[in-house]
Amino acid sequence: MRIFGIDPGSDRTGYGCVETDGSRHRIVLSGAISTPALAPFPEKLLRIHGRLEALLAHCRPDCVAIESLFYAANARSALKLGHARGVAVLAAVEAGLPVVEYTPAEIKRAVVGYGRAEKHQVQAMVKLILGLAVLPSPHDAADALAVAICHVHSMAPGCAAAAMAARRTRATSWRQYRPARS
Amino acid sequence: MRIFGIDPGSDRTGYGCVETDGSRHRIVLSGAISTPALAPFPEKLLRIHGRLEALLAHCRPDCVAIESLFYAANARSALKLGHARGVAVLAAVEAGLPVVEYTPAEIKRAVVGYGRAEKHQVQAMVKLILGLAVLPSPHDAADALAVAICHVHSMAPGCAAAAMAARRTRATSWRQYRPARS
Repeated sequence: MRIFGIDPGSDRTGYGCVETDGSRHRIVLSGAISTPALAPFPEKLLRIHGRLEALLAHCRPDCVAIESLFYAANARSALKLGHARGVAVLAAVEAGLPVVEYTPAEIKRAVVGYGRAEKHQVQAMVKLILGLAVLPSPHDAADALAVAICHVHSMAPGCAAAAMAARRTRATSWRQYRPARS
Repeated sequence: MRIFGIDPGSDRTGYGCVETDGSRHRIVLSGAISTPALAPFPEKLLRIHGRLEALLAHCRPDCVAIESLFYAANARSALKLGHARGVAVLAAVEAGLPVVEYTPAEIKRAVVGYGRAEKHQVQAMVKLILGLAVLPSPHDAADALAVAICHVHSMAPGCAAAAMAARRTRATSWRQYRPARS
């Protein structure tokens, strides 16, 4: 089974695809879609969407996992991030893939075992879990791999119940989307 | 010349296309893309993007004008609105169209002559300017027509300078996007 993780951002969108047989996980690919700082914002959206579309067609994952964010420094930065996240989710839905979202705390808990873990701890665990020789870089790629690993772990029998219980405690409009045709 | 106005929203996205010969303006079409309240959020994005894609192909406008919003009740609603606005802007850019954004105050000023005009005043002026028999409905459609009219007015010789001056006073990452190939 392949999970494609996305860590959205208007300046840099991390992505990472993880393959698992249930017990062993391996990396398929990871990286980040950078958009030129001075590029017009609509062009950044076009690039993020187009690259994700191509990557999803290439990786052929079974599911897309994406970081959910319901907070931001301010409404303006939330609006900007929302644009990038919107076109990322669209690329997944257009590819007919189920989309699952996890909060940063859920991701940290699933990867490190502690919801308030530091970024470098998450990166170190991503490296360990996937048996990588070096830390995934840039950090957006590591974050995207962490979302994918979080979904892998939440599917494991023991963790699934905990993840479901955690989800019930939060009122969000969607957490898990499965296209009607799949 | 045809201008396609968009008033984005995750529950209802208004649209309205206006044709102008410089002095007389007429409505081409208007309406709203409603998304079922209980539909999963990713499906709402798919519907907004898909419908706008079809409408732009049908109307064949020269330009897309969209309301800019850099404030919201809170970061969470800004994030949600950002998703809808992101896929709307994407549909325009994918169609190879220039995109121009206007703040609510600019739209009110261009349509009513007063930046703090009430919603019903905007609707009444939209009806008058386009010579409509009835008020455009729903209000999201009227708002989208107002954005389109705002762009028509900002292109008029006298208003262009004022609009440009108004724009210089605000620091935004983009206001006007023109695809490289157009």
